[in-house]
Amino acid sequence: MTETRTQVAIVGAGPAGLILGQRLAQHGIEAVILERRDRAYVEARIRAGVLEQHSVDLMKEIGVGERLAREGLVHDGVEICLDGRRTRIDMSAMTGGKKVTVYGQTEVTKDLIAARLAAGLPLVFEAEEVRPLDIDGERPRVTWRKDGVEHTLACDFVAGCDGFHGICRGSLPEGAVTVFERSYPFAWLGILAEAKPAMDELIYARSPRGFALCSMRSETISRHYIQCRPDEDLEEWPVARIWEELRLRLGDSGHLINEGPVTDVSVTPMRSFVAEPMRHGRLFLAGDAAHIVPPTGAKGLNLAASDVHYLSDALIDFYGTGSGDALEAYSAKALARIWKAQRFSWWMTSMLHNFGPAQAFEDRVRQAELEYVLSSEAALTTLAENYVGLPL
Amino acid sequence: MTETRTQVAIVGAGPAGLILGQRLAQHGIEAVILERRDRAYVEARIRAGVLEQHSVDLMKEIGVGERLAREGLVHDGVEICLDGRRTRIDMSAMTGGKKVTVYGQTEVTKDLIAARLAAGLPLVFEAEEVRPLDIDGERPRVTWRKDGVEHTLACDFVAGCDGFHGICRGSLPEGAVTVFERSYPFAWLGILAEAKPAMDELIYARSPRGFALCSMRSETISRHYIQCRPDEDLEEWPVARIWEELRLRLGDSGHLINEGPVTDVSVTPMRSFVAEPMRHGRLFLAGDAAHIVPPTGAKGLNLAASDVHYLSDALIDFYGTGSGDALEAYSAKALARIWKAQRFSWWMTSMLHNFGPAQAFEDRVRQAELEYVLSSEAALTTLAENYVGLPL
Repeated sequence: MTETRTQVAIVGAGPAGLILGQRLAQHGIEAVILERRDRAYVEARIRAGVLEQHSVDLMKEIGVGERLAREGLVHDGVEICLDGRRTRIDMSAMTGGKKVTVYGQTEVTKDLIAARLAAGLPLVFEAEEVRPLDIDGERPRVTWRKDGVEHTLACDFVAGCDGFHGICRGSLPEGAVTVFERSYPFAWLGILAEAKPAMDELIYARSPRGFALCSMRSETISRHYIQCRPDEDLEEWPVARIWEELRLRLGDSGHLINEGPVTDVSVTPMRSFVAEPMRHGRLFLAGDAAHIVPPTGAKGLNLAASDVHYLSDALIDFYGTGSGDALEAYSAKALARIWKAQRFSWWMTSMLHNFGPAQAFEDRVRQAELEYVLSSEAALTTLAENYVGLPL
Repeated sequence: MTETRTQVAIVGAGPAGLILGQRLAQHGIEAVILERRDRAYVEARIRAGVLEQHSVDLMKEIGVGERLAREGLVHDGVEICLDGRRTRIDMSAMTGGKKVTVYGQTEVTKDLIAARLAAGLPLVFEAEEVRPLDIDGERPRVTWRKDGVEHTLACDFVAGCDGFHGICRGSLPEGAVTVFERSYPFAWLGILAEAKPAMDELIYARSPRGFALCSMRSETISRHYIQCRPDEDLEEWPVARIWEELRLRLGDSGHLINEGPVTDVSVTPMRSFVAEPMRHGRLFLAGDAAHIVPPTGAKGLNLAASDVHYLSDALIDFYGTGSGDALEAYSAKALARIWKAQRFSWWMTSMLHNFGPAQAFEDRVRQAELEYVLSSEAALTTLAENYVGLPL
């Protein structure tokens, strides 16, 4: 059994925990990151791949922007395809020069882990049975077991960056948080393929057959999605059928799809979820531990980044001034941005997906909404400014 | 029994039928308007009171804009009140100078009836048992009874402008139209009062207690509404309670409410409804006969005006060129604008009303949406351009 001490115990080595640790270190605040999985697993988790301007700026600020700047694909715009007709939204022109960058979450994670280990900062993989304790008092602790040895870490604060299924939110007392949820009657069937992307930019498509998204990971790797049933049986989707369905949903733009060997097929569920508040005693939640957005609009990773931006600001303020005001304000500040991103993700999801015959009125309204958006400079600007990320 | 002949038989002497008749007469096309009620009833029907720029322009074009120009209250902007804090939206500045005009539907109707009768054009009140017949063929007819006498009107076309409960849509064969509907879990409790309006412009308010709208009919008549239950018992709402509730929903802006004698209290149900297509054979539907919007955003009367603008254009084209192409295109053209107005009315309704605890996630999203809209120039512009009316 070991007993150590730090200032901030960070549970979870996903982007939220790793960015938080990196930024705190830059400001001379000690942290230990505890991760349940091993390094290879963490680095291989395929998730989002579109970074807002803010997230890119933050990566640069904390010294992990070099490979991102070199390999990330910078996008000035995005394409919306309605019944086969494409409209390009020049996001950069509409937002005073903001852009998004396509760079896989796996790459973000790899860069952050490499930087942390290179700096000799503590990062514990395969920490089993992590438990945040005494978070209601002045002296919280986190315990875990590794290789059969029990460990205790005394700390000032615990940051719960351990994802939707993590222990941090799960360990809060009954009634400590209120949960808001919404489920969707569909999911995304995604493929990763060794094929040239359909276009240089992303194509979001609405068609009577349902939603499709043509995205990419690099100039030679395509990442495509089609709306499917939540309980979709992958057996029913041989690769040839997926390619065909993508083409059909793009209609007259279907010829843009380039086929190539498929290296991964998976189903992504769709959910909206928020737990409020994001603080209980000395435990702070950040990222997926507190909220999940449906993937339309790619806000998940970016919200994790803005959460820990706010949280690190508040911790830096606390250690610099001794005042807990900024920590008090963290939850409300983070939630204001989270709800706006939930709204955007919900809006994009609603407008682009087919909700089936039970929602005939709503379906017409959503079709009209997309037609209106594509016809209005102001409405296109709202899409653009949310897509590149609202101001912090 | 009498038998007469005209070019267009118009069923219903509400704004849709009267504007249509007026515009056709201007272009030398004959029409007879048949109305089930008497003149006093039609002129007293209290309905909407906000005219889009397009509707004002159309009234002027057809020669009934004089009193409207003199007595209508021109509004450049609108106020949104969120939890007591007001934001003014300068609609005119955001839409290249478009404005709305407050002028009661009762006044619009009076002006149109007076103009029609002054011109000696046929308008039959108290026409009982109106029936459109043979609309599938080349020679449609409309029959009715008045003072015990049966009448038959042979015509080229029938315009169904007889409202939601009218006979025209009701007389179509099974399956001729598809209906899209949505109901809302609330209604509006409205008062008309001899009191100075709260402000020069309208105030739309969202509060935890529900929606409120402070409007007016003139500089001395207020027209206010509060969200209530659809089955609200007016016995439970003595006038003093209505004034108090209005103030509470306006929060810190509650002091703006001026009390005065209440001359009318009523409950307006909320419904979204569209029947597609708006043509069957030689019968064309327009206005409430084909669609109902919830009153938030005041689109009902304005859609009636744009429907008959399109329909009169098509009839003028038909009688001028002999081509039925424009009549063929009428339904799709009108519906494109109707669905955008349905979207706007639904959006305004959703964002401003309280849907109750069963929609906790959606309620947070809607609160965030309104906060986002009030913080974004682009989003405010989308509100403004829809409020003053999208282009025809």
